[in-house]
Amino acid sequence: MPSSITAAPATPPSSSRLPEAEVDPIFVQRWSTRAFSAQPVPAEALRSLFEAARWAPSASNVQPWLFVYASGADLTGARELLREPNQRWAGSVPVLIFVFARRHHPETQQALRTAAFDTGAAWFSLALQAEKLGLRTHAMGGIQHERVHAALGVPAEDYESIAAIAVGYPGAASELPADLAAREAPNARKSQREFVFAGRYVSPSS
Amino acid sequence: MPSSITAAPATPPSSSRLPEAEVDPIFVQRWSTRAFSAQPVPAEALRSLFEAARWAPSASNVQPWLFVYASGADLTGARELLREPNQRWAGSVPVLIFVFARRHHPETQQALRTAAFDTGAAWFSLALQAEKLGLRTHAMGGIQHERVHAALGVPAEDYESIAAIAVGYPGAASELPADLAAREAPNARKSQREFVFAGRYVSPSS
Repeated sequence: MPSSITAAPATPPSSSRLPEAEVDPIFVQRWSTRAFSAQPVPAEALRSLFEAARWAPSASNVQPWLFVYASGADLTGARELLREPNQRWAGSVPVLIFVFARRHHPETQQALRTAAFDTGAAWFSLALQAEKLGLRTHAMGGIQHERVHAALGVPAEDYESIAAIAVGYPGAASELPADLAAREAPNARKSQREFVFAGRYVSPSS
Repeated sequence: MPSSITAAPATPPSSSRLPEAEVDPIFVQRWSTRAFSAQPVPAEALRSLFEAARWAPSASNVQPWLFVYASGADLTGARELLREPNQRWAGSVPVLIFVFARRHHPETQQALRTAAFDTGAAWFSLALQAEKLGLRTHAMGGIQHERVHAALGVPAEDYESIAAIAVGYPGAASELPADLAAREAPNARKSQREFVFAGRYVSPSS
């Protein structure tokens, strides 16, 4: 299993993906592909992804994240929990992970204000470990939240459903629906100037 | 600048930090220190941290995160925006980054349901890049939200204030207040059994 080695890029760098500062290439090379191979993900690799998530930081170390995943025979039902635009490309994805965040502190019952933020840190730990194993990930907010809770047995009063994550090895864009195949490329980013401010925020309109 | 190299661990591994599966060591070695050196963080390193955050994934690629940071003369006022328990240890931290998430889509004005989750991915990208540069980070939900918005000029109707991140080089635990110095060690994690479920969630009470 590779360790601390940046995985090979999924695509060559493009002019829309130029970093503005020196940074580990794994951050720039990772992107949310839609083309996945149907090749199964070994159980050991999946455990490795969840292990990365396990070590994410969280307020008061509550670790508010919860993952319910579908593979094999569970996939047919799980795919129907995605919203239709995501069902169009996720047909061959071998693993779908549904991500939830706990709403209340398990002891004090106080609302966990940063649960979604902390769960985002866990999700991205998982995504980077996936890259290191040659896997790709794609998080989707487009899921049918009520059906997700019901189908996966996760009480909506205890957990917020946030997203689903497609996990698998890279596939061929040519096997996607034509409109999606044409769009299968990494997207660009804002400049740091638009989201980093020293001392005080200055609104773009001022 | 090191690239794709796992930074040296801040502390030796402890029995509370044993991984349950193979994973890149950076995830296990990173922890949220309170002991920071007052040594300044070079502007180039700070740009590198924000660059990692820049490439994080987000729903519809909205990139909802906003960072307002304090260093140098801005620190005195910025420290007062932390809640008191965090002020106790953050006195020598050379950079404080305040993290916000956009509330609405800039074009459609629709609520951004996953903004905090996406911003968590950006925060953790920044945290890992910091580790790669030998820096440490510590995110704090304990901030005075109303004062943060007012002092940093970030409209609360447009952005949610989420956390502050301390950034700096490792410092000596002995310089912390005695009770915090005694607690200065990485914390443990739940087992994967408690937050990973195949197919369907099973409540611990059932």
